[in-house]
Amino acid sequence: MLEDTLPFWLPRCVDEEHGGFMIARDQDGSLLDTDKGMWQQCRFTWLLATLYNNVEPRDEWLVGARHGIEFISKHGFDADGRMWFHVTREGAPIRKRRYVFTETFGAIAYAACAKAMGDSGMADKARGLHDLARKHFTTPGLIQPKLTGTRPMKSMGGPMMSLVTAQELRACLDDDSFNGDIDACLEEIQSDFMKPDLECVMETVGVNGEVLDHFDGRLLNPGHAIEGAWFVLNEARHRGNDPDLIQMGCQMLDWMWARGWDEEHGGIFYFRDLNNKPVQEYWHDMKFWWVHNEAILA
Amino acid sequence: MLEDTLPFWLPRCVDEEHGGFMIARDQDGSLLDTDKGMWQQCRFTWLLATLYNNVEPRDEWLVGARHGIEFISKHGFDADGRMWFHVTREGAPIRKRRYVFTETFGAIAYAACAKAMGDSGMADKARGLHDLARKHFTTPGLIQPKLTGTRPMKSMGGPMMSLVTAQELRACLDDDSFNGDIDACLEEIQSDFMKPDLECVMETVGVNGEVLDHFDGRLLNPGHAIEGAWFVLNEARHRGNDPDLIQMGCQMLDWMWARGWDEEHGGIFYFRDLNNKPVQEYWHDMKFWWVHNEAILA
Repeated sequence: MLEDTLPFWLPRCVDEEHGGFMIARDQDGSLLDTDKGMWQQCRFTWLLATLYNNVEPRDEWLVGARHGIEFISKHGFDADGRMWFHVTREGAPIRKRRYVFTETFGAIAYAACAKAMGDSGMADKARGLHDLARKHFTTPGLIQPKLTGTRPMKSMGGPMMSLVTAQELRACLDDDSFNGDIDACLEEIQSDFMKPDLECVMETVGVNGEVLDHFDGRLLNPGHAIEGAWFVLNEARHRGNDPDLIQMGCQMLDWMWARGWDEEHGGIFYFRDLNNKPVQEYWHDMKFWWVHNEAILA
Repeated sequence: MLEDTLPFWLPRCVDEEHGGFMIARDQDGSLLDTDKGMWQQCRFTWLLATLYNNVEPRDEWLVGARHGIEFISKHGFDADGRMWFHVTREGAPIRKRRYVFTETFGAIAYAACAKAMGDSGMADKARGLHDLARKHFTTPGLIQPKLTGTRPMKSMGGPMMSLVTAQELRACLDDDSFNGDIDACLEEIQSDFMKPDLECVMETVGVNGEVLDHFDGRLLNPGHAIEGAWFVLNEARHRGNDPDLIQMGCQMLDWMWARGWDEEHGGIFYFRDLNNKPVQEYWHDMKFWWVHNEAILA
């Protein structure tokens, strides 16, 4: 990564004029779009600060992380404390999402910067964003609903993102009080999303973990569940190879590998139906890079 | 269609218990989901009434159309006059969309039923839905925006759907007053979406037809534009082979055929970039059945 990937992006993507990074680039490095996605701004800032914290304290990485967090602080937030999803090159807001994933990436960016720069204000900001996201994931109705209340649902993305965000904040801020959130996320994944009788990890369930026998309720996302297994196994390692967590993570991985692997052409399917029925989404049989990355990491 | 396709659906999909049609079926006819998509309820109802009006007055088609329009009338509408997008088998609302495409399909269902059943109340309902959709397509800000006001945009879908809906209502209700809307739609497509210098039909432009040099602004949808060409050529035929409209429709078709045809593997791409740059959507190079249907019809 340090020799092949990072030199593609640095210093090329740094926007000296308006701040932040211009990341939408073609293979030859030329710019495809000047707009700035806040996920990418947060993740690239987190990456640079994390390299500085964990690999070596190179000045260029610290300068880059500071450059990123300044743009995020200046242009990343709506007046209600929620974050924008997409802004122009200059930072004017284009789009806000109903869901709070941007805020989880904001939390880890601030946490890694807080550690790199020894800045307690950034640590507070990281905690605040994690709390905001956690509250939205766990309070039914707080995220502006896409659906009516007829058939309330919840998704694996909530506990999974809260889990990994809390893990990252615990490490960066050296604060074990995040263990409470981590335990709650593990408990929710195990009790509501893991189904031993069906041998799978559900992507979407009813608010009490019920299996919903409709297109969206039956939809499985093997790569997403395998990503969750990676976070669970990381937690097992953090807790001195906790055998119950190793068992849980490996179970998730085994089930979803069996569900997702394409025996005919190789690779992991994007979506599968719980009962192997047809899937509504037309890209269900595509093979995505991130799915395979997550599987390798797990 | 009458010998192969329709017998798959009739009488199988008729829900005698709760009304409407259960259309989500596997290849063997077994049910995949009991939920009812309002697009499909409206389009199947329209189909049956149109067969009755234009092919022959079979009683089973009239009965089926009446069965459909009763479910739509009972369960299709929110209190504000907008339509639901997706309801349960019993008709409880699951989802409403920001956009008004469901209402255009509602308009043609009511119009075809009005003709088949000689029911002026249904004709009024069809007019009302067309007006509602047209108002939403042409009044900036009336559709709850997905984006901020930073970079306002409009899409080919608006004038295209208004055009074909008005054509259908004119035919069913035998009312040439729809020509005004039809002229306005043709004018908007020609002046704001057709770009002779770029030799293409844009999918999304600024509110005054500006080309927006961003991922979504550069995105071309050849199948969609070819579908539009079909509606324009239908209008040309309706007007006694109007040469200007023939020229317009063929131009749209030729441009987008050149843009969309896959020289290597055949078939029409789903999305292309205006400048042949990479496309953000990952299903851009898939080949869709509807794209090819529309092209054959055009």
